[in-house]
Amino acid sequence: MNFTPSEGWEARITSSFARQGLMTTMGAVIHPIAPGIVEIAVVPSPAISQQHGFVHGGAVSAIADTAAGYAAVSLMPPGTAALTTELKINFMAPAGGERIVARGEVVKAGRTLTVVQTNVFTETGGTRKLIALLIATIMTLEAKGDFSD
Amino acid sequence: MNFTPSEGWEARITSSFARQGLMTTMGAVIHPIAPGIVEIAVVPSPAISQQHGFVHGGAVSAIADTAAGYAAVSLMPPGTAALTTELKINFMAPAGGERIVARGEVVKAGRTLTVVQTNVFTETGGTRKLIALLIATIMTLEAKGDFSD
Amino acid sequence: MNFTPSEGWEARITSSFARQGLMTTMGAVIHPIAPGIVEIAVVPSPAISQQHGFVHGGAVSAIADTAAGYAAVSLMPPGTAALTTELKINFMAPAGGERIVARGEVVKAGRTLTVVQTNVFTETGGTRKLIALLIATIMTLEAKGDFSD
Amino acid sequence: MNFTPSEGWEARITSSFARQGLMTTMGAVIHPIAPGIVEIAVVPSPAISQQHGFVHGGAVSAIADTAAGYAAVSLMPPGTAALTTELKINFMAPAGGERIVARGEVVKAGRTLTVVQTNVFTETGGTRKLIALLIATIMTLEAKGDFSD
Repeated sequence: MNFTPSEGWEARITSSFARQGLMTTMGAVIHPIAPGIVEIAVVPSPAISQQHGFVHGGAVSAIADTAAGYAAVSLMPPGTAALTTELKINFMAPAGGERIVARGEVVKAGRTLTVVQTNVFTETGGTRKLIALLIATIMTLEAKGDFSD
Repeated sequence: MNFTPSEGWEARITSSFARQGLMTTMGAVIHPIAPGIVEIAVVPSPAISQQHGFVHGGAVSAIADTAAGYAAVSLMPPGTAALTTELKINFMAPAGGERIVARGEVVKAGRTLTVVQTNVFTETGGTRKLIALLIATIMTLEAKGDFSD
Repeated sequence: MNFTPSEGWEARITSSFARQGLMTTMGAVIHPIAPGIVEIAVVPSPAISQQHGFVHGGAVSAIADTAAGYAAVSLMPPGTAALTTELKINFMAPAGGERIVARGEVVKAGRTLTVVQTNVFTETGGTRKLIALLIATIMTLEAKGDFSD
Repeated sequence: MNFTPSEGWEARITSSFARQGLMTTMGAVIHPIAPGIVEIAVVPSPAISQQHGFVHGGAVSAIADTAAGYAAVSLMPPGTAALTTELKINFMAPAGGERIVARGEVVKAGRTLTVVQTNVFTETGGTRKLIALLIATIMTLEAKGDFSD
C-alpha cells in the first residue's frame, strides 16, 4: 500500500523515540524506513535477557510494540499522539543472533484506529529469520499540551 | 480454583526470576502469592518510561508476561521449563502511581498448555486501579540440560 | 464495578439482537443480566457443529463476541452504535453439554473504547464449566440513520 | 515459504470440512490452494448477518478460523487432528460485497504448535479488499479413534 506521510515524519518519530527511557535503557535504535514502515533493533545482551540467556520476550514485545506505534505515527497528522490500545504477539523461535529487528508496517490507517503488523527477526550475518509476529491497534489522540508524538 | 503446587515452587520461581537480566534492569521484584498466583512489581522511573513520562507499555507488558509465566511455572512438574507462546494485552489507563503491580493467575492448567490472566494495577497509597489486562498461553516443555525453570 | 446503564438498555439490546440473522440461524438467545453484563446461549446441535461433533469454535466465538458487544451497548448513550474492533479468544475445553453460555462483562467503559471480557461455559445439570475466554475491544460510534444499536 | 504437504492433503481437508455442520449452515465453501494455504468463502445473506445487514463478525471469524485450521492440517502428518487453541482477529471494514473470502496461510509450522495468519477480503467484481486479519495458534494432536482430521 501507499500511504501519505505526515510532514516531517522522520524527525518527528526520531525525536519522540529519543524521549523513551525504556528504549534507551535497552539500547534500542530506530530506523525510519518509509511512511508506515519503521524498524527498531536491539543487540542481545545480559541486560535484556531471560533466564536461559536469550533476549526476554518482554524486550522483544517492547520493541515490536514501539515499532508498531511509530509506524502509525509516521502517518498521523501533526498535533496528534499515538496510544497503543492493545497488542497480541506470537513467539515462534528463541531471540538470539547478532541483532533483533522489529519491522512494523501499517496494515490499515483509520481516522481513529490504525492496525499495524510487526514482524520480528533475528539477524545473523545479514540473514533474517522470523521469530515473532505482533498485531497492534493504535489510537490517534488529539494531543494536549506537550503530549504530541 | 485450587491448584496443586509443584514441590518447592517458591524457591524455584524466585531463583529463575533472579536470572532474568531484563527484570533486574527494570528493577522488578517478584512476590509468589500462592500456587498459580504470582505478582511482579516495578516502581515508575525514567529508565522504564515512554515519551510522556508514564511507564512504557513494553515494561508493563514485560512484567505482565513474566508474572503469567511464573504463575504457570508454580504448577509445573520439576524438570520442565515454561515458554510463552503468545500473549495479548489491552492497555486501559496510563501506567503511573507509586508502583505498577502485575498479578498473574492461572485460568486453566493443561498438560501442554496453560492459560493465564494477568491484571495489571497502579498502586497509590495502598489503592489499586486496573490499568491493563493480559491473557497468555504458556507451553510446558521438557527441560534439557540447564534449561529448567 | 458499578456501571450506569443507558436508558431502556434491556429493550435496546434485545431488539438489536433480534435483527442479527446469524444469531437466529444459530438458535442463540440473549439474557440481559445487568448493565454491563449480558449472556448469550446456544444449544449444541449438528447445525453449529465442527467435524468431531462438538460445537464449532466459530459458533463459540460468535456468541462470545456478541455477548461482549451487547454488554458494551448496555452502557452506551442512545444514538450510538457498537463496533467490535478486535477480539482474542482462548479455547480451553471442548464445547458440549446441554447449553453453551457466553457471559460478557465490561471491564472498562471508555468514551471511545470499551474493553469486555467474556467467559464461555458449558452448562450441564445446572453446573457451569469454563471452556473459553474472550477479550474484545468495542468502539462507540455516532449512529448514522438507522445504524444505532 | 515452501512447506511439505501431508499425503492426500486436499482430500483430507475437503472431507473433514464437509463434516462441519456450521460451515454447511453458513453455506461456506473450501478451496485448497496449496500446502499451507487454504481459502474459505461465504456469500453474504440474511442468514449470516448482523443487525445492520453486513455479514456478522462471528461469521467472518468462523471462516477465518476454519481457513487457519485447514491450512495447518494440510501440513500435518496423517493420524493427527488439529485444535485451535486461540485466535485474535482485527476487524477493519464492514463485511459486504459479493463474497467474503478468508485466506489462511501458515506462518510457522512447529511440531506441536502451528501459527497461521488469515487475511479476510471482500470480493466484488474480482477485486479483493482486506477487511480483517486473524492470527491463530493451532495445536497438533495425536488422533484417537475417529478424531483425525
